[in-house]
Amino acid sequence: MDRFSVTLGSKASCAGKPQDHGHTLPILHEIRHALERLLATGEETRIDLNAMPFGPGDLERLRAWLGTGEVQASVSAMGLTLIQETAIPGVWLVDYQNADSQRLTLHLEIAPVPEILRPQPQDLAEAIATLDARMDEGQSNPP
Amino acid sequence: MDRFSVTLGSKASCAGKPQDHGHTLPILHEIRHALERLLATGEETRIDLNAMPFGPGDLERLRAWLGTGEVQASVSAMGLTLIQETAIPGVWLVDYQNADSQRLTLHLEIAPVPEILRPQPQDLAEAIATLDARMDEGQSNPP
Repeated sequence: MDRFSVTLGSKASCAGKPQDHGHTLPILHEIRHALERLLATGEETRIDLNAMPFGPGDLERLRAWLGTGEVQASVSAMGLTLIQETAIPGVWLVDYQNADSQRLTLHLEIAPVPEILRPQPQDLAEAIATLDARMDEGQSNPP
Repeated sequence: MDRFSVTLGSKASCAGKPQDHGHTLPILHEIRHALERLLATGEETRIDLNAMPFGPGDLERLRAWLGTGEVQASVSAMGLTLIQETAIPGVWLVDYQNADSQRLTLHLEIAPVPEILRPQPQDLAEAIATLDARMDEGQSNPP
């Protein structure tokens, strides 16, 4: 198990959910638990919303409950990933798309910042070498 | 001194800079030192490029040397802040603008992720209360 616990990666059992809120309430409670873990131990959580047994309107209802925060981001690598902060600090929507802008999956990520926005540790470790290479290149033919 | 060391906040002395690279080389060396500190101690650095004695073309040259990374982001709060990852992991351009989209200042930030993208610690600590309030609100009048 990597340091993420994808707690709702498989079909969630949502017995007894109040009909008017669809599958939204169980996910909100799961987000709450994930925030408790994040604050207590730093453990980050990803919830794959594509795996949820959503009924009509459930996803829109969930997004309305979560609201929208100040930060938007995109990562362009083998297709675009769109990141939207929700109104709940530490709760992010991460929309993975393929090169044809089709959704691959939609995650909720409970973390200070989604992992995809953070440089990989080994890339960060090689940052100085990357800079040196660019400086050498730039010295021989200045931009 | 907060945990950032803004090492080049004042006019930098750039004696003896090779003319063809303008003021670019001293800043690249400063970025290198900042990356060393980041990797060694986690210390993050901000360099206020607005305070640099740039000559014509220096900023464009610097941006060309730094290149462009995969991540772009924006933060909308009292004006827009535009964030661009450079080709050097951990080195970011942060363009602070006012409500009229005029540049307030342009920073280089050497950090895993720019601070403005990260929730404030106290906001994160209150995230559960924020979620609870939205859940209470949502229960009384569902979105």
